[in-house]
Amino acid sequence: MGKTKNISSASAEKIIARRRESVNVPQLLEAVLKGNRTALSRSITYVESRAETHKEIAQRIIDGCLPYANTSLRLGITGVPGVGKSTFIEALGNLLIAKGKKVAVLAVDPTSGLSHGSILGDKTRMETLSVNPKAFIRPSASGDSLGGVARKTREAIILCEAAGFDVIIVETVGVGQSEVAVHSMTDFFLLLKLAGAGDELQGIKRGIIEMADAILINKADGDMEKAATMAKNAFARALHLYPPKESEWQPKVATCSALQNTGVEQAWKIVENYLKTTQNNGYFEQNRKNQNAYWLRQSIENALKDDFYGKKEVKNSFSKYLEKINAGEITPFQAAAALLKLR
Amino acid sequence: MGKTKNISSASAEKIIARRRESVNVPQLLEAVLKGNRTALSRSITYVESRAETHKEIAQRIIDGCLPYANTSLRLGITGVPGVGKSTFIEALGNLLIAKGKKVAVLAVDPTSGLSHGSILGDKTRMETLSVNPKAFIRPSASGDSLGGVARKTREAIILCEAAGFDVIIVETVGVGQSEVAVHSMTDFFLLLKLAGAGDELQGIKRGIIEMADAILINKADGDMEKAATMAKNAFARALHLYPPKESEWQPKVATCSALQNTGVEQAWKIVENYLKTTQNNGYFEQNRKNQNAYWLRQSIENALKDDFYGKKEVKNSFSKYLEKINAGEITPFQAAAALLKLR
Repeated sequence: MGKTKNISSASAEKIIARRRESVNVPQLLEAVLKGNRTALSRSITYVESRAETHKEIAQRIIDGCLPYANTSLRLGITGVPGVGKSTFIEALGNLLIAKGKKVAVLAVDPTSGLSHGSILGDKTRMETLSVNPKAFIRPSASGDSLGGVARKTREAIILCEAAGFDVIIVETVGVGQSEVAVHSMTDFFLLLKLAGAGDELQGIKRGIIEMADAILINKADGDMEKAATMAKNAFARALHLYPPKESEWQPKVATCSALQNTGVEQAWKIVENYLKTTQNNGYFEQNRKNQNAYWLRQSIENALKDDFYGKKEVKNSFSKYLEKINAGEITPFQAAAALLKLR
Repeated sequence: MGKTKNISSASAEKIIARRRESVNVPQLLEAVLKGNRTALSRSITYVESRAETHKEIAQRIIDGCLPYANTSLRLGITGVPGVGKSTFIEALGNLLIAKGKKVAVLAVDPTSGLSHGSILGDKTRMETLSVNPKAFIRPSASGDSLGGVARKTREAIILCEAAGFDVIIVETVGVGQSEVAVHSMTDFFLLLKLAGAGDELQGIKRGIIEMADAILINKADGDMEKAATMAKNAFARALHLYPPKESEWQPKVATCSALQNTGVEQAWKIVENYLKTTQNNGYFEQNRKNQNAYWLRQSIENALKDDFYGKKEVKNSFSKYLEKINAGEITPFQAAAALLKLR
């Protein structure tokens, strides 16, 4: 312990790596279950760690938390940079805490490992929420694959729930397939948008609108208020043309100004109504079961694919076969059969 | 040969199986390349056959056709039963033949093998088209898996193209993921809809609207004309709220009456404009390459999954692990690791 104090430049992970002999997992777990945020943070660091020696510790913590998990509302939030996600999450988080809830904020951002940035890294962006003892804000796990980041976030959710957090907000900036990942680990999926700018300017990917349980037109204040109302009406009309969701929930559209703190209470009412509907019709429970099966299959299939495409022989031949297909020399099915023989 | 004449109840496939010693592949291939519809039909039967002895014959035919493939426009058409797909395809097919084109109609319907029916099985539904020598109509390949049916349809497209068909229409009724399959093997994806009835009544799955390059409101005649125009306007407004497609094509909405043969010419103009746009910006070629890569990966990954989930040990344990996850005893990631050890 004394030794690590002198290494001021070492990252938290390295410090923990040196401490590994001294970690008392039952003690750490007990602190997490009591809602200790420092213990929770340290535990999530084990879960996120790539060090082999941490994997067993992480597994013991997860196993200890599992019986106390599955208790929160998991809320997914997406929207392009600049839409005001942090301001909105801060306003919503403070509202929920005022209602007596404990709020954790996580993020899925598969690029943060590459850019060494993080969408929640700048904690000053949620100044009031981050200092609140009823809130827990965790920057995105770093990692180069979405599968890896998603897994760590799913496991962090378990730990936060065991630590007594009632609402887990999972933020995504929508890189790669991260919206699909967040949609598949949350109960309610909220899309934040701006009025005026078309989606082509906002960079929203096709398919996201169909995933949303609610669309909030943010920054509905000052000069933008009228445009926000128009955008709201246009989306409300459009959503009615969609086929109904399996949840039997008709997605809602509303405006809000996270900055002026208007419409945030209304947004939460929408979430509460969704909960009422889906808990009554059984969809809420069924969806969580579907999500479990989804992640089981995803994990298996990602491993199968990693094994196959990672093979040296396959790597060497894949693009050669693709060229042959594009040149009209063989069909994709013939090429697949040939590549599968390289197993 | 003489022997088979007495077996009047034998299916075409069985007859071909008996004939296998006598099949002259180079001769059959030559006839296909000359556009002989009987030879084309017989060749597709080999492609669709599950008999081991036919696989090599099918492969030789496909190999012989590949250099002449990739030449047609591939048009995907979807819409729920009752929307008038057959009537529309017949009207469009006759229009295209009048313009000097040759038209093939295929179908993807993974249920047809189970129900012993077929969405194109009742040829009387396309009376005028089916007797036209410039048209080739093939009922859906039977098969219990979408992957299998999709593969056979992809291969049938190659044969039709080699036989000189300019426009290949691939129809789907939208069972399972069949729209995704058809979308992934065609250049243009057309959704037929009815006015008035909401999607909840029409059974359109979520996500289909975002795939469509055009939405046609059919049966815009008589009492329904006004409602069709209103539906057209509503969809046109809604589609403008979507983010742009990678093709840079803004999906179009129009009305038509396949029965009265109005709006069909206009629908074809939309397809022609799409072609112009995507051939100019390079998307048309790029999309076909993407589709090749998609089918290569799909074939590989389906084989990997079939192998894994087909293992006796995995079959025996899968639902047990799923129950453990749902009971909160283990995470999906732990269950996946345990199941992967059974390989």
